[in-house]
Amino acid sequence: MAVKIITISRMFGSGGRTVGKRLAEELDFEYFDREIIDRIAGETGFSKDYVAANSEYAPGKSIFSYSFEAAATPGVMNGMTTADYLYSVQRKKVLEIANSGHNCIIVGRCADYILKEYDSVLNVFIYADLEFRKKRIVETYGESDTKPEKRVIDKDKKRAANYKHFTDREWGKAGNYDICLNSGYLGIDKCVEIIKDIVISK
Amino acid sequence: MAVKIITISRMFGSGGRTVGKRLAEELDFEYFDREIIDRIAGETGFSKDYVAANSEYAPGKSIFSYSFEAAATPGVMNGMTTADYLYSVQRKKVLEIANSGHNCIIVGRCADYILKEYDSVLNVFIYADLEFRKKRIVETYGESDTKPEKRVIDKDKKRAANYKHFTDREWGKAGNYDICLNSGYLGIDKCVEIIKDIVISK
Repeated sequence: MAVKIITISRMFGSGGRTVGKRLAEELDFEYFDREIIDRIAGETGFSKDYVAANSEYAPGKSIFSYSFEAAATPGVMNGMTTADYLYSVQRKKVLEIANSGHNCIIVGRCADYILKEYDSVLNVFIYADLEFRKKRIVETYGESDTKPEKRVIDKDKKRAANYKHFTDREWGKAGNYDICLNSGYLGIDKCVEIIKDIVISK
Repeated sequence: MAVKIITISRMFGSGGRTVGKRLAEELDFEYFDREIIDRIAGETGFSKDYVAANSEYAPGKSIFSYSFEAAATPGVMNGMTTADYLYSVQRKKVLEIANSGHNCIIVGRCADYILKEYDSVLNVFIYADLEFRKKRIVETYGESDTKPEKRVIDKDKKRAANYKHFTDREWGKAGNYDICLNSGYLGIDKCVEIIKDIVISK
């Protein structure tokens, strides 16, 4: 069955977004990444920065912290934490994009899980070793007060916890995806080429 | 750097061995799978069937079972369990193959981990969903008294436990490999084509 949607999950600093953008251009697919944050912000009234900080990077909550938070803190809607509420809106937005009928690429946002019943989806995971990613985030996002290694590890931990919380799956486990590519080993160009070839030949 | 060694880790029934054999023919690489069991049997004096049952598929041992076994059962050599002893011989055989100077493909045997310091290795993981693998093992290995689903799940569990025990890594986690391919989604031919292209273009 022809590929109409490509989901790209990625380790921080692996170049997964670049792979997605390149594919969108070369295949003429629509591209969704920060655009989903904008849509969630639009629907919820939260700022884009708030949505970004409290959706994909929000740590998973244990049952204990969940009920504690619900009892003791503001910002909990109808018994939901903010992260849970944002996920429900995010899920809706991902489904709207998938149902629009346009070919598209969705980066992050648990889209592989949200679209697991869809037939025409190719699920990709892009990753690389720590050294490659440390170097790449400094080149791409610049220096910061936090050491590159800590920035990379912290973001991955948060993505993994977020993914586990909402999907009950292990982030980065090959079986969740149709293809997993080490961009540090293969290079960004080869990742784009392999995925593009799969889409064209399906 | 040119690829001289391809390691293939695989879910049971995913066709990883077939991918390996096809690549060996098409790239003119030597192929090692059961051949390693033969070499271990030759060195240890154990039968091939005994080596097969007690190496790759031996469950990992906890510290408790380890010391209990060492104290209470025969077949423990110098404080090692049989599985540990066989692993040490397996490691030696994999290193001998890697150091032979011939281009080769090694299926299973924790070769990705054993050769982790080698530069010219491409580490591949082949997997597929349960339905694809259930169907494939019946076609490939025939029916048995045990249901296909149980055969697949049991072998995967043993491989995962064995890999964890000897490498302290999670079997099937994308980050351990350079590329992971879902043979159920992509098909065996496409898996061979993608890997071959990487080897040729590196």
